[in-house]
Amino acid sequence: MNELSLISMIRGFSGPQTGDDCAVLPYTRREDLLITTDLMVEDVHFRRANETGVDTGWRTLARGLSDIAAMGGDPKYCLVSLALAPWTCPSYVRDFYRGLTSLGKRHGVTLVGGDITKSVKFTADIVVLGTAPKGRALRRNTAGAGDLVCVSGALGGNAASGFRLKRPEPKLAYGRELLFTRRATACMDLTDGLALDLHRMALASGLTASLFAEKLPLAKQAAIEHALHGGEDYELLFTCRPRRTPLGAHVVGVMETGKAGALKINGRPLEAKGWDPFSA
Amino acid sequence: MNELSLISMIRGFSGPQTGDDCAVLPYTRREDLLITTDLMVEDVHFRRANETGVDTGWRTLARGLSDIAAMGGDPKYCLVSLALAPWTCPSYVRDFYRGLTSLGKRHGVTLVGGDITKSVKFTADIVVLGTAPKGRALRRNTAGAGDLVCVSGALGGNAASGFRLKRPEPKLAYGRELLFTRRATACMDLTDGLALDLHRMALASGLTASLFAEKLPLAKQAAIEHALHGGEDYELLFTCRPRRTPLGAHVVGVMETGKAGALKINGRPLEAKGWDPFSA
Repeated sequence: MNELSLISMIRGFSGPQTGDDCAVLPYTRREDLLITTDLMVEDVHFRRANETGVDTGWRTLARGLSDIAAMGGDPKYCLVSLALAPWTCPSYVRDFYRGLTSLGKRHGVTLVGGDITKSVKFTADIVVLGTAPKGRALRRNTAGAGDLVCVSGALGGNAASGFRLKRPEPKLAYGRELLFTRRATACMDLTDGLALDLHRMALASGLTASLFAEKLPLAKQAAIEHALHGGEDYELLFTCRPRRTPLGAHVVGVMETGKAGALKINGRPLEAKGWDPFSA
Repeated sequence: MNELSLISMIRGFSGPQTGDDCAVLPYTRREDLLITTDLMVEDVHFRRANETGVDTGWRTLARGLSDIAAMGGDPKYCLVSLALAPWTCPSYVRDFYRGLTSLGKRHGVTLVGGDITKSVKFTADIVVLGTAPKGRALRRNTAGAGDLVCVSGALGGNAASGFRLKRPEPKLAYGRELLFTRRATACMDLTDGLALDLHRMALASGLTASLFAEKLPLAKQAAIEHALHGGEDYELLFTCRPRRTPLGAHVVGVMETGKAGALKINGRPLEAKGWDPFSA
Protein backbone atom coordinates (compact mmCIF):
# COMPACT_ATOMS: atom_id res chain seq x y z
CA MET A 1 0.00 0.00 0.00
CA ASN A 2 1.53 3.33 -1.01
CA GLU A 3 0.29 6.88 -1.08
CA LEU A 4 -0.58 6.91 -4.80
CA SER A 5 -2.72 3.76 -4.69
CA LEU A 6 -4.53 4.94 -1.54
CA ILE A 7 -5.24 8.33 -3.06
CA SER A 8 -6.67 6.80 -6.20
CA MET A 9 -9.04 4.65 -4.09
CA ILE A 10 -10.08 7.65 -1.98
CA ARG A 11 -10.71 9.75 -5.06
CA GLY A 12 -13.60 7.44 -5.88
CA PHE A 13 -15.42 8.82 -2.82
CA SER A 14 -14.78 12.47 -3.59
CA GLY A 15 -16.61 15.01 -5.68
CA PRO A 16 -15.20 16.01 -9.09
CA GLN A 17 -11.61 17.05 -8.55
CA THR A 18 -8.25 16.92 -10.24
CA GLY A 19 -6.10 16.15 -7.21
CA ASP A 20 -4.80 19.69 -6.87
CA ASP A 21 -3.03 21.05 -3.81
CA CYS A 22 -6.24 22.79 -2.71
CA ALA A 23 -9.94 22.22 -3.24
CA VAL A 24 -11.47 25.06 -5.29
CA LEU A 25 -14.97 26.12 -4.24
CA PRO A 26 -17.31 28.84 -5.48
CA TYR A 27 -16.93 32.00 -3.40
CA THR A 28 -17.74 35.57 -4.42
CA ARG A 29 -18.56 36.76 -7.93
CA ARG A 30 -14.91 37.51 -8.66
CA GLU A 31 -13.14 34.96 -6.52
CA ASP A 32 -12.89 31.26 -5.84
CA LEU A 33 -12.22 29.89 -2.37
CA LEU A 34 -9.15 27.68 -1.96
CA ILE A 35 -8.95 25.29 0.95
CA THR A 36 -6.28 22.82 1.98
CA THR A 37 -5.72 20.53 4.96
CA ASP A 38 -2.37 18.92 5.92
CA LEU A 39 -1.27 16.75 8.80
CA MET A 40 2.02 17.19 10.66
CA VAL A 41 2.79 14.11 12.73
CA GLU A 42 5.60 13.63 15.25
CA ASP A 43 8.21 11.10 14.07
CA VAL A 44 6.75 11.21 10.54
CA HIS A 45 7.09 14.88 9.58
CA PHE A 46 9.27 16.08 12.44
CA ARG A 47 11.31 14.83 15.34
CA ARG A 48 11.06 16.57 18.67
CA ALA A 49 14.83 16.35 19.25
CA ASN A 50 15.60 18.19 16.01
CA GLU A 51 13.47 21.30 16.27
CA THR A 52 11.70 23.64 18.68
CA GLY A 53 7.96 24.12 19.06
CA VAL A 54 8.35 27.45 17.24
CA ASP A 55 9.91 25.63 14.26
CA THR A 56 7.18 22.99 14.17
CA GLY A 57 4.41 25.59 14.37
CA TRP A 58 6.02 27.62 11.58
CA ARG A 59 6.49 24.59 9.37
CA THR A 60 2.94 23.35 9.98
CA LEU A 61 1.52 26.57 8.55
CA ALA A 62 4.21 26.66 5.83
CA ARG A 63 2.92 23.32 4.52
CA GLY A 64 -0.57 24.75 4.12
CA LEU A 65 0.63 28.05 2.66
CA SER A 66 2.73 26.20 0.10
CA ASP A 67 -0.47 24.55 -1.17
CA ILE A 68 -2.07 27.98 -1.58
CA ALA A 69 1.09 29.22 -3.37
CA ALA A 70 0.86 26.25 -5.72
CA MET A 71 -2.52 27.49 -6.96
CA GLY A 72 -1.41 31.13 -7.26
CA GLY A 73 -3.70 32.00 -4.34
CA ASP A 74 -3.82 34.57 -1.60
CA PRO A 75 -4.07 33.02 1.90
CA LYS A 76 -6.53 34.59 4.36
CA TYR A 77 -7.40 32.36 7.30
CA CYS A 78 -6.16 29.24 9.02
CA LEU A 79 -7.43 26.77 11.61
CA VAL A 80 -5.29 24.27 13.46
CA SER A 81 -6.30 21.09 15.26
CA LEU A 82 -3.80 19.75 17.78
CA ALA A 83 -3.46 16.37 19.44
CA LEU A 84 -0.96 16.71 22.29
CA ALA A 85 1.43 13.90 23.17
CA PRO A 86 2.06 12.98 26.83
CA TRP A 87 5.37 14.91 26.75
CA THR A 88 3.74 18.14 25.56
CA CYS A 89 3.91 20.97 28.12
CA PRO A 90 2.03 24.30 27.94
CA SER A 91 5.21 26.20 26.97
CA TYR A 92 5.67 23.91 23.96
CA VAL A 93 2.08 24.59 22.87
CA ARG A 94 2.67 28.33 23.31
CA ASP A 95 5.85 28.10 21.19
CA PHE A 96 4.00 26.14 18.52
CA TYR A 97 1.34 28.88 18.25
CA ARG A 98 4.05 31.56 18.30
CA GLY A 99 5.82 29.97 15.34
CA LEU A 100 2.59 29.43 13.46
CA THR A 101 1.21 32.93 14.01
CA SER A 102 4.54 34.66 13.29
CA LEU A 103 4.59 33.10 9.82
CA GLY A 104 0.87 33.86 9.52
CA LYS A 105 1.45 37.55 10.22
CA ARG A 106 4.03 37.82 7.41
CA HIS A 107 1.35 36.72 4.96
CA GLY A 108 -1.76 38.34 6.45
CA VAL A 109 -3.21 35.02 7.62
CA THR A 110 -5.49 35.08 10.68
CA LEU A 111 -5.92 32.05 12.95
CA VAL A 112 -9.70 31.68 13.31
CA GLY A 113 -10.27 28.34 15.00
CA GLY A 114 -9.28 24.79 15.74
CA ASP A 115 -9.63 21.86 18.08
CA ILE A 116 -7.47 20.39 20.82
CA THR A 117 -7.21 16.84 22.10
CA LYS A 118 -4.55 14.29 22.98
CA SER A 119 -2.78 11.39 21.27
CA VAL A 120 0.34 9.26 21.62
CA LYS A 121 2.25 11.45 19.15
CA PHE A 122 2.02 15.21 18.78
CA THR A 123 -0.20 15.77 15.73
CA ALA A 124 -1.27 19.02 14.09
CA ASP A 125 -3.72 19.41 11.27
CA ILE A 126 -3.52 22.74 9.47
CA VAL A 127 -6.40 24.12 7.41
CA VAL A 128 -5.70 27.16 5.23
CA LEU A 129 -8.32 29.14 3.32
CA GLY A 130 -7.38 31.50 0.55
CA THR A 131 -8.74 33.08 -2.58
CA ALA A 132 -7.89 33.18 -6.28
CA PRO A 133 -9.48 35.11 -9.14
CA LYS A 134 -12.52 33.17 -10.35
CA GLY A 135 -11.65 30.23 -12.61
CA ARG A 136 -7.97 31.15 -12.67
CA ALA A 137 -6.42 29.10 -9.83
CA LEU A 138 -3.37 27.25 -11.16
CA ARG A 139 -3.91 23.52 -11.61
CA ARG A 140 -1.66 20.54 -12.11
CA ASN A 141 -3.67 18.87 -14.89
CA THR A 142 -3.41 21.63 -17.48
CA ALA A 143 0.14 21.21 -18.84
CA GLY A 144 0.34 20.92 -22.63
CA ALA A 145 2.63 18.90 -24.90
CA GLY A 146 5.67 21.01 -25.76
CA ASP A 147 5.42 23.08 -22.56
CA LEU A 148 8.67 23.65 -20.72
CA VAL A 149 8.99 22.21 -17.20
CA CYS A 150 10.27 24.81 -14.71
CA VAL A 151 11.08 25.09 -11.01
CA SER A 152 11.18 28.28 -8.95
CA GLY A 153 14.51 27.71 -7.18
CA ALA A 154 17.37 25.41 -6.21
CA LEU A 155 16.43 21.86 -5.25
CA GLY A 156 17.65 19.20 -2.85
CA GLY A 157 19.15 21.51 -0.23
CA ASN A 158 16.90 20.36 2.54
CA ALA A 159 17.36 16.66 1.82
CA ALA A 160 21.15 17.12 1.48
CA SER A 161 21.37 18.75 4.91
CA GLY A 162 19.28 16.04 6.63
CA PHE A 163 16.13 18.19 6.59
CA ARG A 164 17.58 20.98 8.71
CA LEU A 165 15.47 23.74 7.16
CA LYS A 166 13.41 24.89 10.14
CA ARG A 167 11.57 27.91 8.77
CA PRO A 168 10.84 27.46 5.07
CA GLU A 169 9.37 30.38 3.15
CA PRO A 170 6.39 29.31 1.06
CA LYS A 171 6.53 30.80 -2.44
CA LEU A 172 3.33 32.82 -2.23
CA ALA A 173 4.52 35.88 -4.14
CA TYR A 174 5.97 33.71 -6.89
CA GLY A 175 2.75 31.73 -7.24
CA ARG A 176 0.62 34.88 -7.48
CA GLU A 177 3.03 36.29 -10.07
CA LEU A 178 2.63 33.13 -12.17
CA LEU A 179 -1.14 33.48 -11.99
CA PHE A 180 -1.38 37.21 -12.68
CA THR A 181 1.14 37.25 -15.55
CA ARG A 182 -0.59 34.19 -17.06
CA ARG A 183 2.81 32.56 -17.56
CA ALA A 184 2.15 29.15 -16.03
CA THR A 185 0.10 26.55 -17.91
CA ALA A 186 0.14 24.23 -14.84
CA CYS A 187 1.55 24.46 -11.32
CA MET A 188 1.97 22.56 -8.03
CA ASP A 189 4.32 22.74 -5.06
CA LEU A 190 7.37 20.54 -4.64
CA THR A 191 7.04 18.62 -1.41
CA ASP A 192 7.99 15.04 -2.12
CA GLY A 193 10.87 15.44 -4.59
CA LEU A 194 10.91 16.53 -8.24
CA ALA A 195 10.50 13.00 -9.64
CA LEU A 196 7.38 12.04 -7.66
CA ASP A 197 5.75 15.47 -7.96
CA LEU A 198 6.49 15.78 -11.68
CA HIS A 199 5.05 12.29 -12.16
CA ARG A 200 1.85 13.51 -10.50
CA MET A 201 1.66 16.56 -12.77
CA ALA A 202 2.40 14.53 -15.91
CA LEU A 203 -0.17 11.90 -14.92
CA ALA A 204 -2.86 14.52 -14.25
CA SER A 205 -2.08 16.21 -17.58
CA GLY A 206 -1.91 12.93 -19.55
CA LEU A 207 1.68 13.53 -20.67
CA THR A 208 5.24 12.23 -20.33
CA ALA A 209 7.78 14.53 -18.66
CA SER A 210 11.35 14.60 -19.89
CA LEU A 211 14.09 16.13 -17.67
CA PHE A 212 17.57 17.39 -18.59
CA ALA A 213 19.90 16.34 -15.77
CA GLU A 214 22.42 19.12 -16.39
CA LYS A 215 19.70 21.78 -16.12
CA LEU A 216 18.59 20.89 -12.59
CA PRO A 217 19.39 23.80 -10.26
CA LEU A 218 21.07 22.03 -7.35
CA ALA A 219 21.23 23.64 -3.92
CA LYS A 220 24.62 23.88 -2.23
CA GLN A 221 25.91 20.41 -1.29
CA ALA A 222 22.91 18.75 -2.97
CA ALA A 223 23.40 15.81 -5.33
CA ILE A 224 21.01 15.11 -8.19
CA GLU A 225 19.47 12.33 -6.09
CA HIS A 226 18.48 14.87 -3.43
CA ALA A 227 16.80 17.07 -6.04
CA LEU A 228 14.95 14.19 -7.69
CA HIS A 229 13.90 12.12 -4.70
CA GLY A 230 14.55 14.14 -1.51
CA GLY A 231 11.51 16.30 -0.94
CA GLU A 232 10.61 19.23 1.35
CA ASP A 233 11.88 21.85 -1.09
CA TYR A 234 9.00 24.34 -0.75
CA GLU A 235 9.60 25.45 -4.35
CA LEU A 236 7.04 25.55 -7.15
CA LEU A 237 6.97 23.17 -10.11
CA PHE A 238 5.23 24.59 -13.17
CA THR A 239 5.01 24.49 -16.92
CA CYS A 240 4.95 27.33 -19.44
CA ARG A 241 4.87 27.81 -23.21
CA PRO A 242 8.32 28.16 -24.83
CA ARG A 243 9.49 31.80 -24.89
CA ARG A 244 7.02 32.55 -22.06
CA THR A 245 9.42 31.54 -19.26
CA PRO A 246 8.96 33.90 -16.31
CA LEU A 247 11.81 35.68 -14.55
CA GLY A 248 13.65 33.53 -12.06
CA ALA A 249 12.42 30.26 -13.52
CA HIS A 250 14.79 27.36 -14.07
CA VAL A 251 13.84 25.32 -17.12
CA VAL A 252 14.52 21.67 -16.26
CA GLY A 253 12.65 19.73 -18.93
CA VAL A 254 9.78 19.51 -21.35
CA MET A 255 6.33 17.88 -21.49
CA GLU A 256 5.79 15.41 -24.33
CA THR A 257 3.02 13.25 -25.66
CA GLY A 258 3.46 9.67 -24.44
CA LYS A 259 2.46 7.42 -21.57
CA ALA A 260 0.63 9.53 -18.95
CA GLY A 261 2.84 10.02 -15.90
CA ALA A 262 5.99 8.52 -17.42
CA LEU A 263 9.29 10.25 -16.59
CA LYS A 264 12.55 10.44 -18.50
CA ILE A 265 15.88 11.99 -17.64
CA ASN A 266 18.30 12.60 -20.51
CA GLY A 267 16.12 10.27 -22.55
CA ARG A 268 16.25 7.33 -20.13
CA PRO A 269 13.36 6.18 -17.91
CA LEU A 270 13.24 7.70 -14.42
CA GLU A 271 11.41 6.11 -11.50
CA ALA A 272 8.71 8.20 -9.79
CA LYS A 273 10.05 7.66 -6.31
CA GLY A 274 10.18 10.34 -3.63
CA TRP A 275 9.09 11.00 -0.09
CA ASP A 276 6.21 8.64 0.68
CA PRO A 277 5.12 8.28 4.32
CA PHE A 278 4.18 4.65 3.66
CA SER A 279 7.60 3.65 2.41
CA ALA A 280 9.62 5.84 4.79
CA MET B 1 -3.24 21.23 32.24
CA ASN B 2 -6.85 20.80 31.13
CA GLU B 3 -8.73 21.67 27.97
CA LEU B 4 -10.21 24.93 29.28
CA SER B 5 -6.87 26.40 30.40
CA LEU B 6 -5.18 25.39 27.13
CA ILE B 7 -7.96 26.90 25.07
CA SER B 8 -7.76 30.19 26.93
CA MET B 9 -4.00 30.36 26.25
CA ILE B 10 -4.49 29.53 22.59
CA ARG B 11 -7.22 32.14 22.23
CA GLY B 12 -4.54 34.79 22.80
CA PHE B 13 -3.03 33.84 19.43
CA SER B 14 -6.31 33.88 17.51
CA GLY B 15 -8.22 36.60 15.77
CA PRO B 16 -11.36 38.01 17.38
CA GLN B 17 -13.64 35.11 18.22
CA THR B 18 -16.09 33.98 20.81
CA GLY B 19 -15.10 30.33 21.02
CA ASP B 20 -18.07 29.12 19.00
CA ASP B 21 -18.33 25.68 17.46
CA CYS B 22 -17.37 27.09 14.05
CA ALA B 23 -15.38 30.06 12.85
CA VAL B 24 -17.64 32.54 11.01
CA LEU B 25 -16.07 34.22 7.97
CA PRO B 26 -17.41 36.71 5.44
CA TYR B 27 -18.77 34.91 2.38
CA THR B 28 -21.36 36.15 -0.10
CA ARG B 29 -23.58 39.21 0.32
CA ARG B 30 -26.30 37.16 1.96
CA GLU B 31 -24.32 34.43 3.67
CA ASP B 32 -21.51 33.83 6.12
CA LEU B 33 -19.14 30.90 5.77
CA LEU B 34 -18.94 28.50 8.71
CA ILE B 35 -15.89 26.32 9.13
CA THR B 36 -14.99 23.76 11.76
CA THR B 37 -12.16 21.27 12.26
CA ASP B 38 -12.23 18.28 14.66
CA LEU B 39 -9.82 15.50 15.39
CA MET B 40 -10.84 11.86 15.86
CA VAL B 41 -8.02 9.88 17.47
CA GLU B 42 -7.82 6.13 18.03
CA ASP B 43 -7.99 5.22 21.73
CA VAL B 44 -9.11 8.76 22.60
CA HIS B 45 -12.34 9.16 20.61
CA PHE B 46 -12.82 5.58 19.49
CA ARG B 47 -11.51 2.07 20.04
CA ARG B 48 -10.89 -0.16 17.10
CA ALA B 49 -12.33 -3.18 18.89
CA ASN B 50 -15.67 -1.43 19.51
CA GLU B 51 -16.64 -0.22 16.06
CA THR B 52 -16.15 -0.75 12.34
CA GLY B 53 -14.41 1.58 9.90
CA VAL B 54 -17.85 2.55 8.59
CA ASP B 55 -18.89 3.63 12.11
CA THR B 56 -15.72 5.65 12.66
CA GLY B 57 -16.02 7.38 9.30
CA TRP B 58 -19.66 8.22 9.99
CA ARG B 59 -18.91 9.53 13.46
CA THR B 60 -15.94 11.60 12.24
CA LEU B 61 -18.21 13.55 9.91
CA ALA B 62 -21.02 13.64 12.51
CA ARG B 63 -18.70 15.53 14.87
CA GLY B 64 -18.13 18.22 12.27
CA LEU B 65 -21.79 18.36 11.20
CA SER B 66 -22.87 18.77 14.82
CA ASP B 67 -20.72 21.93 14.99
CA ILE B 68 -22.53 23.29 11.92
CA ALA B 69 -25.90 22.35 13.49
CA ALA B 70 -24.89 24.24 16.63
CA MET B 71 -24.69 27.48 14.63
CA GLY B 72 -27.94 26.84 12.71
CA GLY B 73 -25.89 26.33 9.54
CA ASP B 74 -26.25 24.42 6.33
CA PRO B 75 -23.27 22.09 5.63
CA LYS B 76 -21.87 22.04 2.07
CA TYR B 77 -18.37 20.58 1.82
CA CYS B 78 -15.95 18.52 3.85
CA LEU B 79 -12.28 17.60 3.74
CA VAL B 80 -10.67 14.81 5.73
CA SER B 81 -7.02 14.29 6.64
CA LEU B 82 -6.06 10.76 7.66
CA ALA B 83 -3.04 9.41 9.46
CA LEU B 84 -3.09 5.62 9.12
CA ALA B 85 -1.89 3.37 11.94
CA PRO B 86 0.31 0.32 11.17
CA TRP B 87 -2.76 -1.95 11.51
CA THR B 88 -4.80 -0.03 8.92
CA CYS B 89 -5.57 -2.03 5.78
CA PRO B 90 -7.02 -0.65 2.53
CA SER B 91 -10.44 -2.20 3.24
CA TYR B 92 -10.60 -0.31 6.55
CA VAL B 93 -9.81 2.95 4.76
CA ARG B 94 -12.51 2.15 2.18
CA ASP B 95 -15.02 1.45 4.97
CA PHE B 96 -14.08 4.69 6.70
CA TYR B 97 -14.79 6.67 3.52
CA ARG B 98 -18.00 4.72 2.96
CA GLY B 99 -19.29 5.64 6.41
CA LEU B 100 -18.24 9.24 6.05
CA THR B 101 -19.70 9.75 2.58
CA SER B 102 -22.95 7.93 3.36
CA LEU B 103 -23.67 10.39 6.18
CA GLY B 104 -22.47 13.20 3.91
CA LYS B 105 -24.99 12.21 1.22
CA ARG B 106 -27.89 12.43 3.67
CA HIS B 107 -27.04 16.07 4.27
CA GLY B 108 -25.84 17.16 0.82
CA VAL B 109 -22.19 17.37 1.90
CA THR B 110 -19.52 16.78 -0.77
CA LEU B 111 -16.04 15.50 0.10
CA VAL B 112 -13.70 17.88 -1.73
CA GLY B 113 -10.21 17.14 -0.45
CA GLY B 114 -7.84 15.96 2.23
CA ASP B 115 -4.44 14.60 3.05
CA ILE B 116 -3.11 11.15 3.88
CA THR B 117 -0.11 10.12 5.94
CA LYS B 118 0.77 7.67 8.71
CA SER B 119 1.05 7.70 12.49
CA VAL B 120 1.13 5.31 15.45
CA LYS B 121 -2.63 5.72 16.04
CA PHE B 122 -5.33 6.09 13.39
CA THR B 123 -6.15 9.80 13.31
CA ALA B 124 -8.71 11.65 11.24
CA ASP B 125 -9.18 15.39 11.06
CA ILE B 126 -12.51 16.47 9.64
CA VAL B 127 -13.08 19.94 8.17
CA VAL B 128 -16.66 20.96 7.39
CA LEU B 129 -17.69 24.12 5.56
CA GLY B 130 -21.22 25.41 5.68
CA THR B 131 -23.23 28.57 5.37
CA ALA B 132 -25.61 30.63 7.49
CA PRO B 133 -27.63 33.75 6.66
CA LYS B 134 -25.33 36.76 7.11
CA GLY B 135 -24.88 37.83 10.74
CA ARG B 136 -27.40 35.27 11.97
CA ALA B 137 -25.31 32.20 12.86
CA LEU B 138 -26.23 31.06 16.37
CA ARG B 139 -23.58 31.83 19.00
CA ARG B 140 -22.90 30.66 22.51
CA ASN B 141 -22.12 34.07 24.01
CA THR B 142 -25.49 35.71 23.41
CA ALA B 143 -27.68 34.21 26.16
CA GLY B 144 -29.50 36.80 28.28
CA ALA B 145 -30.41 36.86 31.98
CA GLY B 146 -33.84 35.32 32.42
CA ASP B 147 -33.54 33.17 29.28
CA LEU B 148 -34.64 29.57 29.64
CA VAL B 149 -31.99 26.86 29.14
CA CYS B 150 -33.20 24.14 26.75
CA VAL B 151 -31.94 20.92 25.19
CA SER B 152 -33.16 19.32 21.97
CA GLY B 153 -33.54 15.75 23.23
CA ALA B 154 -32.89 13.10 25.87
CA LEU B 155 -29.44 13.12 27.45
CA GLY B 156 -26.99 10.60 28.83
CA GLY B 157 -28.02 7.64 26.70
CA ASN B 158 -24.67 7.25 25.05
CA ALA B 159 -22.67 7.50 28.28
CA ALA B 160 -25.08 5.10 30.03
CA SER B 161 -24.59 2.47 27.34
CA GLY B 162 -20.78 2.73 27.38
CA PHE B 163 -20.73 4.92 24.25
CA ARG B 164 -22.32 2.36 21.99
CA LEU B 165 -23.97 4.90 19.69
CA LYS B 166 -22.23 4.17 16.39
CA ARG B 167 -24.10 6.37 13.94
CA PRO B 168 -25.29 9.53 15.66
CA GLU B 169 -27.58 11.88 13.76
CA PRO B 170 -26.38 15.49 13.99
CA LYS B 171 -29.29 17.86 14.69
CA LEU B 172 -28.97 19.92 11.51
CA ALA B 173 -32.69 20.41 10.84
CA TYR B 174 -33.29 21.38 14.46
CA GLY B 175 -30.44 23.92 14.40
CA ARG B 176 -31.70 25.52 11.19
CA GLU B 177 -35.22 25.68 12.64
CA LEU B 178 -33.88 27.51 15.71
CA LEU B 179 -32.14 30.01 13.45
CA PHE B 180 -34.98 30.60 10.99
CA THR B 181 -37.71 30.90 13.62
CA ARG B 182 -35.47 33.23 15.67
CA ARG B 183 -36.30 31.24 18.76
CA ALA B 184 -32.80 30.66 20.16
CA THR B 185 -30.92 33.49 21.86
CA ALA B 186 -27.76 31.31 22.07
CA CYS B 187 -26.85 27.79 20.93
CA MET B 188 -24.06 25.18 20.94
CA ASP B 189 -23.86 21.42 20.60
CA LEU B 190 -23.66 19.00 23.52
CA THR B 191 -20.49 16.97 23.15
CA ASP B 192 -18.83 16.89 26.56
CA GLY B 193 -21.83 16.64 28.91
CA LEU B 194 -24.45 19.20 29.89
CA ALA B 195 -22.50 20.55 32.89
CA LEU B 196 -19.24 21.33 31.04
CA ASP B 197 -20.97 22.61 27.90
CA LEU B 198 -23.46 24.76 29.83
CA HIS B 199 -20.54 26.16 31.84
CA ARG B 200 -18.94 27.21 28.53
CA MET B 201 -22.13 28.90 27.34
CA ALA B 202 -22.67 30.66 30.68
CA LEU B 203 -19.03 31.80 30.78
CA ALA B 204 -19.18 33.15 27.21
CA SER B 205 -22.45 34.95 28.00
CA GLY B 206 -21.24 36.32 31.37
CA LEU B 207 -24.03 34.59 33.30
CA THR B 208 -24.74 31.88 35.88
CA ALA B 209 -26.78 28.88 34.73
CA SER B 210 -29.25 27.26 37.10
CA LEU B 211 -30.57 23.75 36.34
CA PHE B 212 -33.65 21.96 37.66
CA ALA B 213 -32.68 18.31 38.24
CA GLU B 214 -36.21 16.94 37.83
CA LYS B 215 -36.56 18.62 34.41
CA LEU B 216 -33.59 16.88 32.79
CA PRO B 217 -34.84 14.60 29.98
CA LEU B 218 -32.97 11.39 30.72
CA ALA B 219 -32.44 8.79 28.02
CA LYS B 220 -33.46 5.21 28.73
CA GLN B 221 -31.19 3.70 31.41
CA ALA B 222 -29.38 7.01 31.91
CA ALA B 223 -28.77 8.42 35.39
CA ILE B 224 -28.55 12.14 36.05
CA GLU B 225 -24.74 11.77 36.23
CA HIS B 226 -24.68 10.51 32.63
CA ALA B 227 -26.68 13.52 31.46
CA LEU B 228 -24.58 16.03 33.37
CA HIS B 229 -21.08 14.65 32.88
CA GLY B 230 -21.18 11.89 30.25
CA GLY B 231 -20.88 13.56 26.87
CA GLU B 232 -21.32 12.51 23.22
CA ASP B 233 -25.03 13.32 23.18
CA TYR B 234 -25.16 15.03 19.77
CA GLU B 235 -28.07 17.19 20.99
CA LEU B 236 -28.26 20.98 20.96
CA LEU B 237 -28.06 23.17 24.04
CA PHE B 238 -29.73 26.56 23.61
CA THR B 239 -31.46 29.41 25.38
CA CYS B 240 -34.70 31.19 24.51
CA ARG B 241 -36.90 33.94 25.94
CA PRO B 242 -39.70 32.69 28.23
CA ARG B 243 -42.86 31.85 26.24
CA ARG B 244 -40.70 31.51 23.10
CA THR B 245 -39.80 27.87 23.70
CA PRO B 246 -39.71 26.02 20.35
CA LEU B 247 -41.50 22.76 19.69
CA GLY B 248 -39.66 19.73 20.97
CA ALA B 249 -37.50 21.68 23.38
CA HIS B 250 -36.95 20.48 26.93
CA VAL B 251 -36.59 23.37 29.37
CA VAL B 252 -33.94 22.34 31.90
CA GLY B 253 -32.99 25.60 33.62
CA VAL B 254 -32.62 29.34 33.48
CA MET B 255 -29.81 31.85 32.96
CA GLU B 256 -29.28 34.30 35.81
CA THR B 257 -27.04 37.22 36.60
CA GLY B 258 -24.14 36.10 38.79
CA LYS B 259 -20.59 34.78 38.49
CA ALA B 260 -19.84 34.14 34.82
CA GLY B 261 -19.72 30.43 34.11
CA ALA B 262 -21.03 29.34 37.51
CA LEU B 263 -23.50 26.42 37.57
CA LYS B 264 -26.24 25.52 40.02
CA ILE B 265 -28.57 22.54 40.19
CA ASN B 266 -31.68 22.90 42.37
CA GLY B 267 -29.97 25.93 43.91
CA ARG B 268 -26.74 24.11 44.90
CA PRO B 269 -23.37 24.58 43.19
CA LEU B 270 -22.60 22.15 40.35
CA GLU B 271 -19.10 21.35 39.15
CA ALA B 272 -18.32 21.99 35.46
CA LYS B 273 -16.85 18.57 34.87
CA GLY B 274 -17.41 16.54 31.72
CA TRP B 275 -15.53 14.74 29.01
CA ASP B 276 -12.04 16.25 28.88
CA PRO B 277 -9.39 14.41 26.86
CA PHE B 278 -6.71 15.61 29.29
CA SER B 279 -8.38 14.18 32.37
CA ALA B 280 -9.75 11.03 30.73
